[in-house]
Amino acid sequence: MTEHPTAALDDVVHQRHRLGILTIAGEVKRVEFAYLKSTLNLTAGNLSRHIAVLEEAGLPVIEKGYEGKRPKTWVSVTAAGRKALAAEMAALRALLDRHGKA
Amino acid sequence: MTEHPTAALDDVVHQRHRLGILTIAGEVKRVEFAYLKSTLNLTAGNLSRHIAVLEEAGLPVIEKGYEGKRPKTWVSVTAAGRKALAAEMAALRALLDRHGKA
Repeated sequence: MTEHPTAALDDVVHQRHRLGILTIAGEVKRVEFAYLKSTLNLTAGNLSRHIAVLEEAGLPVIEKGYEGKRPKTWVSVTAAGRKALAAEMAALRALLDRHGKA
Repeated sequence: MTEHPTAALDDVVHQRHRLGILTIAGEVKRVEFAYLKSTLNLTAGNLSRHIAVLEEAGLPVIEKGYEGKRPKTWVSVTAAGRKALAAEMAALRALLDRHGKA
Protein backbone atom coordinates (compact mmCIF):
# COMPACT_ATOMS: atom_id res chain seq x y z
CA MET A 1 0.00 0.00 0.00
CA THR A 2 1.26 3.49 -0.74
CA GLU A 3 1.68 5.87 2.17
CA HIS A 4 -1.47 7.58 3.36
CA PRO A 5 -1.75 11.14 1.93
CA THR A 6 -1.79 12.65 5.43
CA ALA A 7 1.84 11.48 5.83
CA ALA A 8 2.82 14.17 3.31
CA LEU A 9 1.16 16.96 5.32
CA ASP A 10 3.46 19.16 7.38
CA ASP A 11 1.96 20.77 10.49
CA VAL A 12 3.89 23.98 9.86
CA VAL A 13 1.95 24.50 6.63
CA HIS A 14 -1.17 22.43 7.33
CA GLN A 15 -2.41 24.33 10.40
CA ARG A 16 -5.49 26.12 9.09
CA HIS A 17 -4.46 29.73 9.72
CA ARG A 18 -0.96 29.17 8.36
CA LEU A 19 -2.51 27.50 5.32
CA GLY A 20 -4.65 30.61 4.95
CA ILE A 21 -1.63 32.91 5.17
CA LEU A 22 0.36 30.95 2.60
CA THR A 23 -2.49 30.46 0.12
CA ILE A 24 -3.39 34.15 0.16
CA ALA A 25 0.17 35.48 0.16
CA GLY A 26 1.19 32.88 -2.42
CA GLU A 27 -1.03 34.42 -5.06
CA VAL A 28 0.54 37.84 -5.06
CA LYS A 29 3.97 39.41 -4.92
CA ARG A 30 3.35 40.52 -1.35
CA VAL A 31 0.35 40.97 0.88
CA GLU A 32 -0.28 43.45 3.62
CA PHE A 33 -0.46 42.27 7.22
CA ALA A 34 -3.74 44.16 7.71
CA TYR A 35 -5.28 42.43 4.70
CA LEU A 36 -4.36 38.99 6.03
CA LYS A 37 -5.68 39.95 9.45
CA SER A 38 -9.09 40.92 8.15
CA THR A 39 -9.39 38.20 5.51
CA LEU A 40 -8.51 35.45 7.96
CA ASN A 41 -10.38 37.13 10.80
CA LEU A 42 -7.44 36.88 13.20
CA THR A 43 -6.18 39.15 15.93
CA ALA A 44 -2.86 40.88 15.23
CA GLY A 45 -1.23 38.78 17.97
CA ASN A 46 -2.54 35.51 16.61
CA LEU A 47 -1.55 36.37 13.04
CA SER A 48 1.94 37.45 14.20
CA ARG A 49 2.41 34.18 16.04
CA HIS A 50 1.48 32.11 13.00
CA ILE A 51 3.70 34.20 10.74
CA ALA A 52 6.56 33.66 13.19
CA VAL A 53 6.13 29.87 12.96
CA LEU A 54 6.24 30.12 9.17
CA GLU A 55 9.21 32.49 9.25
CA GLU A 56 11.15 30.09 11.43
CA ALA A 57 10.79 27.56 8.63
CA GLY A 58 11.90 30.17 6.06
CA LEU A 59 8.57 30.15 4.22
CA PRO A 60 7.74 33.89 4.14
CA VAL A 61 9.77 37.05 4.48
CA ILE A 62 8.44 40.11 6.26
CA GLU A 63 9.10 43.68 5.15
CA LYS A 64 8.32 46.77 7.14
CA GLY A 65 7.98 50.16 5.53
CA TYR A 66 5.70 53.10 4.89
CA GLU A 67 2.94 53.85 2.48
CA GLY A 68 2.87 57.63 2.67
CA LYS A 69 3.05 58.27 6.40
CA ARG A 70 1.45 55.02 7.45
CA PRO A 71 3.65 52.19 8.67
CA LYS A 72 2.93 48.95 6.85
CA THR A 73 4.02 45.35 7.09
CA TRP A 74 4.09 43.08 4.06
CA VAL A 75 4.37 39.33 3.86
CA SER A 76 5.76 37.58 0.82
CA VAL A 77 6.22 33.88 0.24
CA THR A 78 9.75 32.65 -0.44
CA ALA A 79 10.69 30.01 -3.01
CA ALA A 80 10.84 27.49 -0.16
CA GLY A 81 7.39 28.65 0.92
CA ARG A 82 5.95 28.14 -2.55
CA LYS A 83 7.46 24.68 -2.68
CA ALA A 84 6.04 23.76 0.75
CA LEU A 85 2.62 25.11 -0.22
CA ALA A 86 2.65 23.19 -3.51
CA ALA A 87 3.49 19.98 -1.58
CA GLU A 88 0.61 20.63 0.84
CA MET A 89 -1.85 21.29 -1.99
CA ALA A 90 -0.71 18.12 -3.80
CA ALA A 91 -1.20 16.09 -0.61
CA LEU A 92 -4.68 17.58 -0.10
CA ARG A 93 -5.55 16.76 -3.69
CA ALA A 94 -4.37 13.16 -3.14
CA LEU A 95 -6.46 12.97 0.04
CA LEU A 96 -9.56 14.18 -1.80
CA ASP A 97 -8.89 11.76 -4.65
CA ARG A 98 -8.57 8.88 -2.23
CA HIS A 99 -11.32 9.73 0.24
CA GLY A 100 -13.32 12.58 -1.26
CA LYS A 101 -16.28 10.52 -2.38
CA ALA A 102 -17.36 9.98 1.23
CA MET B 1 -15.81 38.85 -0.43
CA THR B 2 -16.90 35.43 0.73
CA GLU B 3 -15.19 33.98 3.77
CA HIS B 4 -11.82 32.37 3.17
CA PRO B 5 -12.13 28.56 2.91
CA THR B 6 -9.80 28.06 5.89
CA ALA B 7 -12.48 29.63 8.10
CA ALA B 8 -14.53 26.47 7.57
CA LEU B 9 -11.74 24.18 8.78
CA ASP B 10 -12.06 22.84 12.32
CA ASP B 11 -8.79 22.01 14.12
CA VAL B 12 -10.38 18.95 15.74
CA VAL B 13 -10.82 17.38 12.29
CA HIS B 14 -8.16 19.27 10.31
CA GLN B 15 -5.09 18.15 12.31
CA ARG B 16 -3.34 15.78 9.93
CA HIS B 17 -3.41 12.59 12.02
CA ARG B 18 -7.02 13.11 13.02
CA LEU B 19 -7.86 13.73 9.37
CA GLY B 20 -6.11 10.44 8.63
CA ILE B 21 -8.12 8.59 11.28
CA LEU B 22 -11.45 9.96 10.08
CA THR B 23 -10.82 9.48 6.36
CA ILE B 24 -9.72 5.87 6.84
CA ALA B 25 -12.37 4.95 9.40
CA GLY B 26 -15.01 6.83 7.43
CA GLU B 27 -14.77 4.42 4.52
CA VAL B 28 -15.67 1.29 6.43
CA LYS B 29 -18.10 0.16 9.08
CA ARG B 30 -15.31 0.01 11.62
CA VAL B 31 -11.54 -0.10 11.53
CA GLU B 32 -9.11 -1.79 13.83
CA PHE B 33 -6.86 0.31 16.05
CA ALA B 34 -3.81 -1.69 14.90
CA TYR B 35 -4.66 -1.01 11.26
CA LEU B 36 -4.87 2.75 11.88
CA LYS B 37 -1.65 2.62 13.84
CA SER B 38 0.31 1.01 11.03
CA THR B 39 -1.35 2.87 8.16
CA LEU B 40 -0.77 6.25 9.77
CA ASN B 41 2.59 5.22 11.17
CA LEU B 42 1.75 6.41 14.68
CA THR B 43 2.70 5.10 18.09
CA ALA B 44 -0.15 3.58 20.10
CA GLY B 45 0.07 6.49 22.54
CA ASN B 46 -0.08 9.13 19.86
CA LEU B 47 -2.98 7.42 18.07
CA SER B 48 -4.86 7.04 21.38
CA ARG B 49 -4.41 10.72 22.14
CA HIS B 50 -5.78 11.80 18.76
CA ILE B 51 -8.70 9.37 19.04
CA ALA B 52 -9.46 10.84 22.47
CA VAL B 53 -9.64 14.37 21.01
CA LEU B 54 -12.04 13.12 18.34
CA GLU B 55 -14.08 11.14 20.89
CA GLU B 56 -14.48 14.22 23.04
CA ALA B 57 -16.18 15.85 20.06
CA GLY B 58 -18.38 12.76 19.56
CA LEU B 59 -16.92 11.96 16.15
CA PRO B 60 -15.97 8.29 16.58
CA VAL B 61 -17.04 5.55 18.94
CA ILE B 62 -14.60 2.98 20.26
CA GLU B 63 -15.46 -0.68 20.82
CA LYS B 64 -13.32 -3.16 22.64
CA GLY B 65 -13.71 -6.89 22.17
CA TYR B 66 -12.05 -10.09 21.10
CA GLU B 67 -11.32 -11.74 17.83
CA GLY B 68 -10.76 -15.30 18.96
CA LYS B 69 -8.57 -14.88 21.99
CA ARG B 70 -6.96 -11.64 20.89
CA PRO B 71 -8.20 -8.38 22.37
CA LYS B 72 -9.08 -5.87 19.69
CA THR B 73 -10.13 -2.25 19.57
CA TRP B 74 -12.29 -0.89 16.77
CA VAL B 75 -12.99 2.67 15.78
CA SER B 76 -16.12 3.67 13.91
CA VAL B 77 -17.19 7.09 12.77
CA THR B 78 -20.49 8.43 14.11
CA ALA B 79 -23.08 10.34 12.07
CA ALA B 80 -21.66 13.55 13.58
CA GLY B 81 -18.19 12.41 12.56
CA ARG B 82 -19.27 11.79 8.97
CA LYS B 83 -20.86 15.23 8.89
CA ALA B 84 -17.72 16.90 10.27
CA LEU B 85 -15.52 15.01 7.81
CA ALA B 86 -17.75 15.98 4.89
CA ALA B 87 -17.53 19.64 5.95
CA GLU B 88 -13.73 19.41 6.14
CA MET B 89 -13.50 17.77 2.71
CA ALA B 90 -15.81 20.42 1.22
CA ALA B 91 -13.65 23.19 2.71
CA LEU B 92 -10.48 21.56 1.34
CA ARG B 93 -12.10 21.30 -2.08
CA ALA B 94 -13.03 24.99 -1.91
CA LEU B 95 -9.45 25.85 -0.91
CA LEU B 96 -8.06 23.89 -3.86
CA ASP B 97 -10.59 25.49 -6.19
CA ARG B 98 -9.61 28.94 -4.98
CA HIS B 99 -5.86 28.53 -4.64
CA GLY B 100 -4.95 25.20 -6.21
CA LYS B 101 -3.51 26.59 -9.43
CA ALA B 102 -0.51 27.97 -7.55
